[in-house]
Amino acid sequence: MAVQTVAGNTGVSLGSADALSCRECGERFPLGPVFACEMCFGPLEIAYDLPAGDPEGLRKRIEAGPNSIWRYAPLLPVPADVADKPNLNPGFTRLVKADNLARELGVTGELHVKDDSGNPTHSFKDRVVAIAVEAARAFGFTTLSCSSTGNLAGAVGAAAARAGLRSCVFIPHDLEQGKVVMAAVYGGELVGIEGTYDDVNRFCSELIGDPAGEGWGFVNVNLRPYYAEGSKTLAYEICEQLGWRLPDQLVVPIASGSQLTKIDKGLRELIALGLVEEKPYKIFGAQAAGCSPVSRAFKEGHDVVRPVKPDTIAKSLAIGNPADGPYVLDIARRTGGAVEDVDDTQVVEAIKLLARTEGVFAETAGGVTVGVTKKLLEAGLLDPAATTVVLNTGDGLKTLDAVAPTTGPSAIIRPNLDSFREAGLA
Amino acid sequence: MAVQTVAGNTGVSLGSADALSCRECGERFPLGPVFACEMCFGPLEIAYDLPAGDPEGLRKRIEAGPNSIWRYAPLLPVPADVADKPNLNPGFTRLVKADNLARELGVTGELHVKDDSGNPTHSFKDRVVAIAVEAARAFGFTTLSCSSTGNLAGAVGAAAARAGLRSCVFIPHDLEQGKVVMAAVYGGELVGIEGTYDDVNRFCSELIGDPAGEGWGFVNVNLRPYYAEGSKTLAYEICEQLGWRLPDQLVVPIASGSQLTKIDKGLRELIALGLVEEKPYKIFGAQAAGCSPVSRAFKEGHDVVRPVKPDTIAKSLAIGNPADGPYVLDIARRTGGAVEDVDDTQVVEAIKLLARTEGVFAETAGGVTVGVTKKLLEAGLLDPAATTVVLNTGDGLKTLDAVAPTTGPSAIIRPNLDSFREAGLA
Repeated sequence: MAVQTVAGNTGVSLGSADALSCRECGERFPLGPVFACEMCFGPLEIAYDLPAGDPEGLRKRIEAGPNSIWRYAPLLPVPADVADKPNLNPGFTRLVKADNLARELGVTGELHVKDDSGNPTHSFKDRVVAIAVEAARAFGFTTLSCSSTGNLAGAVGAAAARAGLRSCVFIPHDLEQGKVVMAAVYGGELVGIEGTYDDVNRFCSELIGDPAGEGWGFVNVNLRPYYAEGSKTLAYEICEQLGWRLPDQLVVPIASGSQLTKIDKGLRELIALGLVEEKPYKIFGAQAAGCSPVSRAFKEGHDVVRPVKPDTIAKSLAIGNPADGPYVLDIARRTGGAVEDVDDTQVVEAIKLLARTEGVFAETAGGVTVGVTKKLLEAGLLDPAATTVVLNTGDGLKTLDAVAPTTGPSAIIRPNLDSFREAGLA
Repeated sequence: MAVQTVAGNTGVSLGSADALSCRECGERFPLGPVFACEMCFGPLEIAYDLPAGDPEGLRKRIEAGPNSIWRYAPLLPVPADVADKPNLNPGFTRLVKADNLARELGVTGELHVKDDSGNPTHSFKDRVVAIAVEAARAFGFTTLSCSSTGNLAGAVGAAAARAGLRSCVFIPHDLEQGKVVMAAVYGGELVGIEGTYDDVNRFCSELIGDPAGEGWGFVNVNLRPYYAEGSKTLAYEICEQLGWRLPDQLVVPIASGSQLTKIDKGLRELIALGLVEEKPYKIFGAQAAGCSPVSRAFKEGHDVVRPVKPDTIAKSLAIGNPADGPYVLDIARRTGGAVEDVDDTQVVEAIKLLARTEGVFAETAGGVTVGVTKKLLEAGLLDPAATTVVLNTGDGLKTLDAVAPTTGPSAIIRPNLDSFREAGLA
């Protein structure tokens, strides 16, 4: 019954991906460009037939693989030959052992920053888009699309260009010029919508249901179940880079909440496959105070998340109605973590703290996770003696405005030694 | 005699680095923070005692090393334990097989782009600065410094922060705010000099000779012989990523010319060590027309380079009096290459061409190399059937202004399907 309702998309082969499965009712559907359960409207996610039984062999296979997310191809919804196809090969970014930051924060255990600014378009979005591209190819889509206010637009434009797909990205018409340039430079269609980001999203949903949208893969709508799996690779890389070891604590930013849930999924898969030794880990969620519906729900003990109107400089996290909020609450509570938020001043301070201690210039989302890490340590919720991994999911070059007003030269001098001495620099 | 003239800096151990040697007269000096020959004022470079005799063992050792330039530590002036010290671990960036670009340019052989935008601060400068940091540590310097108008300032600030060194970076006082923010965010001293870039440089030379500059390592002045060696890693990586194979042709940008000469040095070392099979290769230099003294000298058949006043959007290449210009001319002529230049319009077109075909958003220097590649192919100077590697040494996010005036949305529409259809997008 369920099989028949997804017309024309059976027979698609995407590696070890087995089916789509509803996160609410568990109903299974064949792989196709759908994202909501026909039974209960719950979100669909990928179910796998993972290569269990030989952890040592799998580990060796991964370690011999390419320096990109494709080393984990056996655990992703992608064809086995994915690394040979034209794509941006994102991932396997640096795990920075942050001893200087640890000292400043009073952390006595290992503190690491997973720095995703090294991805091809400098945010973690390259991971999720790369998986969506493979799904788009499998389903015969010829146009890659999305709604975006920033990182995603560039990631989709770049990935489509390299893959030889047409792209058409929708943005609010009044974005800052820098973001528009970054979205347009890859040569795809870039369409400004006269309206808010919500209007853009609404229009995209309309387009998917219209004949005009036929052959279009919207990475964060009808390809969302595939797309979202890309975030699992953050969990895989962190554990492999720790020497095939689970961290004790992770601090993860929350926008829609999808990334946090997939990191948890990735960690559980590594345990199930025997690639890491099972032990407890805690996942902490980080939001900006100006868009903190999940943090509020966590603190108030609610299971549902009440939408808010975002007002924060952390624009890449400014989703007022996070689709995966309830799942995030589950995971934070189940693992013994928490969800916390910091205000914009703390975000800026945290960006500078990370830059000054480790030479990593994070975007505002990284300021949120570092700021929340500091706050959770002060509150005694993070164990300073444990092994902690903090995520930086984007690049400071993309959010220069956040730090610009308070970041400048320490002195302006004339080009001579007297002037240098007068400024107290000698 | 020569040994005694470099006071107090004998006994320094930097891996397989053996001595400083004059590129003009061949005189050797012990390792120290000096950059010019005391005999003839020629530039000094590092002489090595390289680990010859077991190419297979060396290759295996490199392949088992970290995913950074430190995999080549045995071939660099760095201590053996360099990877364990706090540094930014740059390098091992993507070599992008550029089939789409090859098609557009009529290249029938292999075309690759070495994309250094994936480095920690998004330019190749992280490579050279990382080596300079090790020299600074070895010589007991406590402050890392440089004069810069862009990429180098950020690279020095970030590397010093992570290494726990003080930094003091000098820039012209009237730089664009974005560049100032990038240079200042790492928390070191940033000093604006009331004057031109030439004034900044002159002041730095003065400071090195003054007691106020004691304990200061200027990465591109008194640490220059070490710093420059970092560019060899581009040659190593390209060959390793080609499967331990020399390319037939390389297109390299020219600022001071140092990078091109060190790439040639790196290739010759790989041949001498038996890590690649010897065969001819051609090195082509690329300049912007608005700052093309080496290109002009090459075309006019001169051995010396006549300085020019730069006027180009490719600011990271805008050195009017390139110190290594004569050596570049030698190498281009010896290998059968050439030096060519493209104007600013061609630079912008080339940036967009690379973005549209491969999803790589290059800074203006990358526009110069891709533009020159196109021009050299059209002139029949580059062999379209050969294996060619083009360098992109920086990130488009740092030179947004170059493409902004001609890069924007393809349409602005109202959020409905009628408006979408009217715009001809369906």
